[in-house]
Order: sequence, then C-alpha cells, then structure tokens
Amino acid sequence: MEIDFDKMQGLAPAVIQDAATEELLMVGFMSREALETTLRTGFVTFYSRTRKTLWTKGETSGNRLVVMAAWTDCDRDTLLLRVHVLGAGKVCHTGSKSCFTQELPLGEANLCVAEEARR
Amino acid sequence: MEIDFDKMQGLAPAVIQDAATEELLMVGFMSREALETTLRTGFVTFYSRTRKTLWTKGETSGNRLVVMAAWTDCDRDTLLLRVHVLGAGKVCHTGSKSCFTQELPLGEANLCVAEEARR
Repeated sequence: MEIDFDKMQGLAPAVIQDAATEELLMVGFMSREALETTLRTGFVTFYSRTRKTLWTKGETSGNRLVVMAAWTDCDRDTLLLRVHVLGAGKVCHTGSKSCFTQELPLGEANLCVAEEARR
Repeated sequence: MEIDFDKMQGLAPAVIQDAATEELLMVGFMSREALETTLRTGFVTFYSRTRKTLWTKGETSGNRLVVMAAWTDCDRDTLLLRVHVLGAGKVCHTGSKSCFTQELPLGEANLCVAEEARR
C-alpha cells in the first residue's frame, strides 16, 4: 500500500499505541525509509527531524518497540503502530511509560458538555 | 501550558482516541486557535491544511467529538484528545468508526519478533 508522504515534505506522523493496554505511548515521524525499516525489522524506527537521521526507538535504552500490527488511515497520510514494549517498558525519556503525561485544563463549556456526555 | 507550535509551522498533530474503548479514531492538525476553540467549546476543532481554515469535526455529519480529557507530551508538540463521539459514532468520512482501517503487511523478520513478543 502506497503511503502519502508528500503532505508533510516526506514524512508521516506515526502514532504508537500499546497493543495490550491500548495506551497511547508517543507520536513520532516516519519517512518512507523509516517505515520500510520498521516493517522489515519489526522495531519502530523514526526519522528524527532535528538530527535528520533514522533512529530506532530504544536502541540505547533497550526499550525497543516491537510492531504487532501496522495500519494507515483513509487518507494514507498517517500511521498507527500497535506495539509491544521491550525492556523496562518506559517509552518516554522522562522515565514514564507514555509521553502523554501533561494534562491540559478544559474550559467551562467543555467541562459542561463532557459532564453531559458522561451521563 | 504552552504548546510548541513552531516545529510544524504553527501546527501540532492531534491524536483522537475514544475515551471509552481506547480505540484510535483519527489524527488531525491543530493550530493554536484550533486548540483554544477545542478546549473552550469542548468540541474537537482542527485546522484544515488544504482549506486553510478551522473546521469543527462533525459540524455537518453530526458526529461531533466531545473532549473528555486533553493531554500533551513531554516535548509539548503533540496533542492527545480523549473523546466521546456524538451522533452515529462514525468518525471517518468513509463510514467506519475509525479512520485506521487499512492494515499494512509486516515483513518476515517483523512477523518473527512479533510472534516472540506474543509468547
């Protein structure tokens, strides 16, 4: 399947989800080469926008991410990788499992519609 | 909390996850204004890169996304919105719940390490 890397100058966002717990772990970017490397080796490999090079997640920490399933979306411009985390299971460089640890405050109207949705 | 919109020329990827089922529904992009609108109103609002304007997801279909919780990651350059889907619950314009419906084939070595990880 052909992924559309043109919308982001050669990159596509890659969402990393824990295949067992469904937890959102991190988002990185993949070039065509990064995706090919990921699906060939089975270890999530991103393209670093700052270092301008491929990097296999966990290559130094040991917390490598094994691809259990890979998906693309209706526009074929975004990737979803469902993974199994090796090593200590801490995906974020801050030492937490997920990179998404900072909660944003919701506005008053948002709290109200969220409360309604909960009923 | 200050989100870093500079890495993507004023945008940040926004991952949309079903708060109840944990399913990955879609990925869109938010500008600062889109994020502010989202958190103020409680309805997920993206910035359309093609139309160059804000759009509230589901404004025509009725499948609006109520924000139940919002998070950012360690780099503060990516957003995670955990949502409740209103209407018929079909988030994707193709009529499916999630936009991630196209599975990518894994290479031989990937299948092998995934099988090992499953044990």
